[in-house]
Amino acid sequence: MADFQSLSHQDKQQLKDSLQKRINEYKAQVLQLDMTRGKPGPEQLDICNDLLTCVDENHFMTGGGVDTRNYGILDGITEAKELFADFMGAAKNEIIVGGNSSLNMMYDIFAQLMTHGSSTDSTPWFSRKKKFICPVPGYDRHFTICQRFGIEMINVDMTEFGPDITMIEELVKNDGDIVGMWCVPRYSNPTGYTCSSEIVERLAAMPTKCKDFRIFWDDAYAVHFLNDAPDKLLNLLDACKKAGNPDRVFIFSSTSKVSFPGGGVAMLAASEKNCAWLKERLFAQTIGPDKINMLRHVIYFKDLAGILKHMKKQANIIAPKFTAVHDILTGELAGKGIASWTKPAGGYFISLNTLDNCAKRVVALAGELGVKLTPAGATFPYKKDPLDRNIRIAPTFPGLDDLKKATEVLAVCIQYISLG
Amino acid sequence: MADFQSLSHQDKQQLKDSLQKRINEYKAQVLQLDMTRGKPGPEQLDICNDLLTCVDENHFMTGGGVDTRNYGILDGITEAKELFADFMGAAKNEIIVGGNSSLNMMYDIFAQLMTHGSSTDSTPWFSRKKKFICPVPGYDRHFTICQRFGIEMINVDMTEFGPDITMIEELVKNDGDIVGMWCVPRYSNPTGYTCSSEIVERLAAMPTKCKDFRIFWDDAYAVHFLNDAPDKLLNLLDACKKAGNPDRVFIFSSTSKVSFPGGGVAMLAASEKNCAWLKERLFAQTIGPDKINMLRHVIYFKDLAGILKHMKKQANIIAPKFTAVHDILTGELAGKGIASWTKPAGGYFISLNTLDNCAKRVVALAGELGVKLTPAGATFPYKKDPLDRNIRIAPTFPGLDDLKKATEVLAVCIQYISLG
Repeated sequence: MADFQSLSHQDKQQLKDSLQKRINEYKAQVLQLDMTRGKPGPEQLDICNDLLTCVDENHFMTGGGVDTRNYGILDGITEAKELFADFMGAAKNEIIVGGNSSLNMMYDIFAQLMTHGSSTDSTPWFSRKKKFICPVPGYDRHFTICQRFGIEMINVDMTEFGPDITMIEELVKNDGDIVGMWCVPRYSNPTGYTCSSEIVERLAAMPTKCKDFRIFWDDAYAVHFLNDAPDKLLNLLDACKKAGNPDRVFIFSSTSKVSFPGGGVAMLAASEKNCAWLKERLFAQTIGPDKINMLRHVIYFKDLAGILKHMKKQANIIAPKFTAVHDILTGELAGKGIASWTKPAGGYFISLNTLDNCAKRVVALAGELGVKLTPAGATFPYKKDPLDRNIRIAPTFPGLDDLKKATEVLAVCIQYISLG
Repeated sequence: MADFQSLSHQDKQQLKDSLQKRINEYKAQVLQLDMTRGKPGPEQLDICNDLLTCVDENHFMTGGGVDTRNYGILDGITEAKELFADFMGAAKNEIIVGGNSSLNMMYDIFAQLMTHGSSTDSTPWFSRKKKFICPVPGYDRHFTICQRFGIEMINVDMTEFGPDITMIEELVKNDGDIVGMWCVPRYSNPTGYTCSSEIVERLAAMPTKCKDFRIFWDDAYAVHFLNDAPDKLLNLLDACKKAGNPDRVFIFSSTSKVSFPGGGVAMLAASEKNCAWLKERLFAQTIGPDKINMLRHVIYFKDLAGILKHMKKQANIIAPKFTAVHDILTGELAGKGIASWTKPAGGYFISLNTLDNCAKRVVALAGELGVKLTPAGATFPYKKDPLDRNIRIAPTFPGLDDLKKATEVLAVCIQYISLG
């Protein structure tokens, strides 16, 4: 199909008429489709239902003899630590297994930094000027945490090899107010990109003017591959240790999109020093996390191989959805010079860029046609996409037919709006 | 038995010899008994085991059609709100159902107050001078939270009708730095006392110099009666509303000692304004609590009557333990003028006072004989019991025989130390 720029005025008018006709047809169908949320579909959850009942009246003790029903243990039962240490590529003494939300672990660490400073500088962030580096497009909930705590956000482009490392190195070398950065390093939200080993190593080693600079490494999609050749990600904790900056990173993950988003297990890996610093807070903060749910995961998955086997089943459900979106976008938009989109090998999202200044209008038009999309701008700090072009597509939750229809509508909207 | 004060020197020596003999016998038995923790015993947990499996592959949707396995809902599924609104005597729009730890909810509110101030004064506590009223003896974990956030603690006596209200009224009227107070209002930890209606009403109505004074009302033992005439507690949220101070109180509770401490559900009740203020934080803090576990509790207990019926079964298990401790203490110590102890009609503890300056030595001696007790001082802020006389007894976890033996040892230690 021809590039829209090369179309004559008459061609454009003709195309617009035919798109208007399709739009009218969609309107007549009174659609109600939702592509807003990176939620697993029910069929993904169904394959995991045995987890619900694997702890029962005969199975509530850990191998080590802990009654998971009762009080005790702040940082996770041993068996869960072993399972998730493998999962995160960390040592058992570098891991804390928590409640059901890794976002909550991230938030809590910010809250602690605000009132008590870090493990290497006890100056509370509350009384500091503070800025954070945010790879864009990125995960809106990360940005919400920064906003909540009055932390100024600095956009840095997310490239297909990871965040723009040259720009980051320059920023953190010169500005001591930059106290940290966010990153979803693997199958990133929303691009699906994975950080290269070079970028991981440079993040670990770069000199920072702020002496307790912290990387919040949200490995939310650690095992969420869509094909048989999962992306490899260098372990940032190891890299930081090698570079002499062991306390620079907190790595987060969870089983939210492995088992159940509504009842999974979250975990973090960090240096022993950072874990000790966190546990000091934990004692004041809680009597302990839900150990029964940890044991469910230990019994159900057994080991890392068990998790990977399970994720293969999930990939079989999700991959056709990603393919469908890609195929429809290709059929409708390829060669027209009006949109580009990522083709992730894992994760939960596709990132699509329209022409500049079109995303908001595309999302609004799709909304009028009954297709709910994540608000344009949501993937940027302060919900402001400077070029107003990024749209996050979440293919996992809708059924395949709904998804195809919604993608079609989206593609028609993009074409229509691009014609001006 | 004669008061120790009336004993002659010779009588004392004789008594000391016979106590020494008993001590030697205990030593020879190499005991290993633990009365430190207010933990349910395994037999209490066993009666609740069906809760583990009542959510299964056919039962994971709420009555309202929410898939509890998936993302969504920040403040609890409707059915859990209904159940626990009844439980707490609050309206559905005045309740937030959370994760597995009410202590965590309390801590989180402190953290929020530190960085963002309250719903009625946005001055962060971080930048204020701040003091807290702590009824003593009280719950150590409350004091730990204050210490964590650098809040000065002021001791106020816990009487059998509740905290010394006259002293509290005087303090809060004159000192604007007093930002709040703790209270376990029902079957209090460790005394077992319950606040009278008069004290509840005066707490609700008292003028406070601090304009956003907050009461942290930890109703941890709301349904934890030991007899057929449960203590009545006036609803403090209602009383605060009537007194024109609706935002003064946060009421907390949980099922930790109803279902499973390691996997229960925590909740709070507060004014609509305070709930809105909390939910603003919740959005930044988490994707949502564990809804599956909420549903387990809804299915298993059904309604408040279901909870009360269950607690009656628990009372049947626990009450004989409280009776045993009381009987042994009475047999060993009554009339001797060396100890007094509470006789709670509910809750998890018995509070015992020795003669002044004896508690530490009693706990140490019992420890030498293989009976672990909560460290003396733990029931006071900064772990400092000014009179060194309070010992917290936790009768629920040990088996009946162990409990009897441990209480006997404790009573012997008290007598021995009291002789000087």
